[in-house]
Amino acid sequence: MSDIVSTKSPKILAIAEAQAIVQQYVRPLPPEPMPLSSAALGHVLAADVVSDLDMPPYHKSMMDGYAVRCADLPTGKGTLQVLEEITAGQVPSRAVEAGQASRIMTGAPLPPGADAVVIVERTRLSENNLVVIEDRPPKPGQNILPQGAEMKCGDIVLRAGAVLRPQEFGVLATIGRTTVLVHPSPRVAVLSTGDELVEPSERPQGGQIRNSNAALLTALVSQAGGTPRYLGIARDDPACLRPLICDGLKAHVLLLSGGVSAGKLDLVPGVLREAGVVAHFHKVEMKPGKPMFFGTYPRPGGGEPTLVFGLPGNPVSVLVCFELFVRPALRRLRGYADPGPHFVSAVLSEDFAYRTDRPTYHPAFLEWTTAGWRVRAVPWIGSADLRALTQANALVVFPPGDHGHRAGQVFEVLKLE
Amino acid sequence: MSDIVSTKSPKILAIAEAQAIVQQYVRPLPPEPMPLSSAALGHVLAADVVSDLDMPPYHKSMMDGYAVRCADLPTGKGTLQVLEEITAGQVPSRAVEAGQASRIMTGAPLPPGADAVVIVERTRLSENNLVVIEDRPPKPGQNILPQGAEMKCGDIVLRAGAVLRPQEFGVLATIGRTTVLVHPSPRVAVLSTGDELVEPSERPQGGQIRNSNAALLTALVSQAGGTPRYLGIARDDPACLRPLICDGLKAHVLLLSGGVSAGKLDLVPGVLREAGVVAHFHKVEMKPGKPMFFGTYPRPGGGEPTLVFGLPGNPVSVLVCFELFVRPALRRLRGYADPGPHFVSAVLSEDFAYRTDRPTYHPAFLEWTTAGWRVRAVPWIGSADLRALTQANALVVFPPGDHGHRAGQVFEVLKLE
Repeated sequence: MSDIVSTKSPKILAIAEAQAIVQQYVRPLPPEPMPLSSAALGHVLAADVVSDLDMPPYHKSMMDGYAVRCADLPTGKGTLQVLEEITAGQVPSRAVEAGQASRIMTGAPLPPGADAVVIVERTRLSENNLVVIEDRPPKPGQNILPQGAEMKCGDIVLRAGAVLRPQEFGVLATIGRTTVLVHPSPRVAVLSTGDELVEPSERPQGGQIRNSNAALLTALVSQAGGTPRYLGIARDDPACLRPLICDGLKAHVLLLSGGVSAGKLDLVPGVLREAGVVAHFHKVEMKPGKPMFFGTYPRPGGGEPTLVFGLPGNPVSVLVCFELFVRPALRRLRGYADPGPHFVSAVLSEDFAYRTDRPTYHPAFLEWTTAGWRVRAVPWIGSADLRALTQANALVVFPPGDHGHRAGQVFEVLKLE
Repeated sequence: MSDIVSTKSPKILAIAEAQAIVQQYVRPLPPEPMPLSSAALGHVLAADVVSDLDMPPYHKSMMDGYAVRCADLPTGKGTLQVLEEITAGQVPSRAVEAGQASRIMTGAPLPPGADAVVIVERTRLSENNLVVIEDRPPKPGQNILPQGAEMKCGDIVLRAGAVLRPQEFGVLATIGRTTVLVHPSPRVAVLSTGDELVEPSERPQGGQIRNSNAALLTALVSQAGGTPRYLGIARDDPACLRPLICDGLKAHVLLLSGGVSAGKLDLVPGVLREAGVVAHFHKVEMKPGKPMFFGTYPRPGGGEPTLVFGLPGNPVSVLVCFELFVRPALRRLRGYADPGPHFVSAVLSEDFAYRTDRPTYHPAFLEWTTAGWRVRAVPWIGSADLRALTQANALVVFPPGDHGHRAGQVFEVLKLE
């Protein structure tokens, strides 16, 4: 069992091929109602949203001034009798008739009979409740936002597929929607494997290191809108792995780190298979991260399968595999139309000699300048070197071969969020 | 009091001037310890972080294979006696001496005496616990990551000012830091004003509209890393405003919407002044959002003052003022070195005629293409039209004047998050 990967010598897939396989098995999660609180930010609407009212719900004054009849002011000048003062939130109590006007505030409803608003700066209140107006001739509709100009009752104001941002929150509040139907956050189980690992709160003894992958992965999952659940460290022992994997398979996604390469103790693929996980690939032609397992677990009760990613043990490999395979899967589960990843073309700003046997995602620093995107490779000593990634905000893709890449050459770059 | 703004005819500031005034009054919040959970994502470290160990903590094998002495394999070929198998997490029990080797797994510590690792694919296990090696002559250090190559005990691995992303989480876990000192989330009170407003859960009656600004602002605050607290709707009445404003002044930031223009019922600046808020500006030369109040409230007990932003009542104005003034202030409170906002230059993709009397932040759709950033203006009927912003992901800056902007012209664009 422990040699299942190497004995079967599975096909090594190109990255795009592997990504396409993952996407084949991912569907947006079934919609759930969610209250419109900050937890809903970034979620994707699962149904169209229809307005329950006209906005504005009345002809609305856009300025402070006087509601008038244009017919009374053919030259723009005149003296009118002031009926009342209408503030926002009030309903006009009187119609404006010939020779009359009403004081009106920004946001207040236009009184019947009036067809324009003259701004207060062009008026002067005189005795006996008269207002003297000296302006250009008003035009009908001037300084008025007509009822329904923003939206009409029955309009679809947001479409299924819309991402909830602050402005969508504002629109939903306007139409009284305090709960929305969205694709929920995927539940993502995170399981670290390896006899060498201890929890970050412990002091490593000889041969041990602290488990950094769980902190890295749970943070990546949270950042990507998933709900992580850390299952702990599994020892390199099928009896220890089995129950933790079975627990993890209840989630929408199970992420394992370590135990997937062809080493003698790399048990994960075997135990996954035993548990009923169908393997789709074990190796991808990339660096870091070549040994990478993807499988699906058909849930006993039906429904969409659990996605299982067996990531390498080194933290930079974990991050690169997450960005290329897991984040796009999470986006799709969350209902995003475009799963990514998205690359930009950037100009290399410093020469960089690099030799690699596979397409390599190298830590890099990407910057927007007036001359466009610029990128430089960040010094890196390999897939365990997470510290290099703290100097990076992107991954630059270097092709296989022994290259002296020159400043000015253009490369594809994946921006880290 | 109600005319305090207009009677004082305050100076109308240019946007950059107003932004500089805000930044004068903002300091990063005093650091607080925070556990390393997803809530810490995006926070800024307030102190350098030092490693408590070497990484790797031992000379680490980077491959599965055999730990050997180069001196034993001058031609790359030879037969060696296998001492033991060292897996990750184990400590070698024996030193490798002349003619000997130990089986070693990826991540395991190199045994004393060995100075290289030969990969397993170049070896064959024979009888009597002997391994036959056929490789090129090994070089000292081959397939070994030396102790301390990633970091040394005592190294500063993260600097004060670093933003906590998943990779920083990984590094912190590696060195056993489960709590970090960061600038905390600013507490931001949100107060809506206006007699016309009802809560989203209510049905507006004549002259009323639902309060969309609170939903918009609390979402913007959450998105910007603040902790919003919604205080409710204040009627246009000093007796109603006063206690709510006093409550809001206990926060790090108080955001009001509505009640700041020169209309008769725009009471907010007066009540703020009464409450002890020092006004710094009331008007900014921009559209939407010209009436915008900024002041500070010296806390009775000392310490940094509460920042008070009186935003206009229209939701698009609220969003624009938030992006230009409030988000940068929140970034600074959170310890970000660069408060923004950051603009990109983008090519207009469609002709757009636009007339405006002030620099205008117009809803727009920004896209990265192989030809660079492209932007198009989104149809918009003014500062109440939040629906337009649901079609937008950016604000394009149009200069004052009556212009027929042409496709191909370059404009500054502020990307919305």
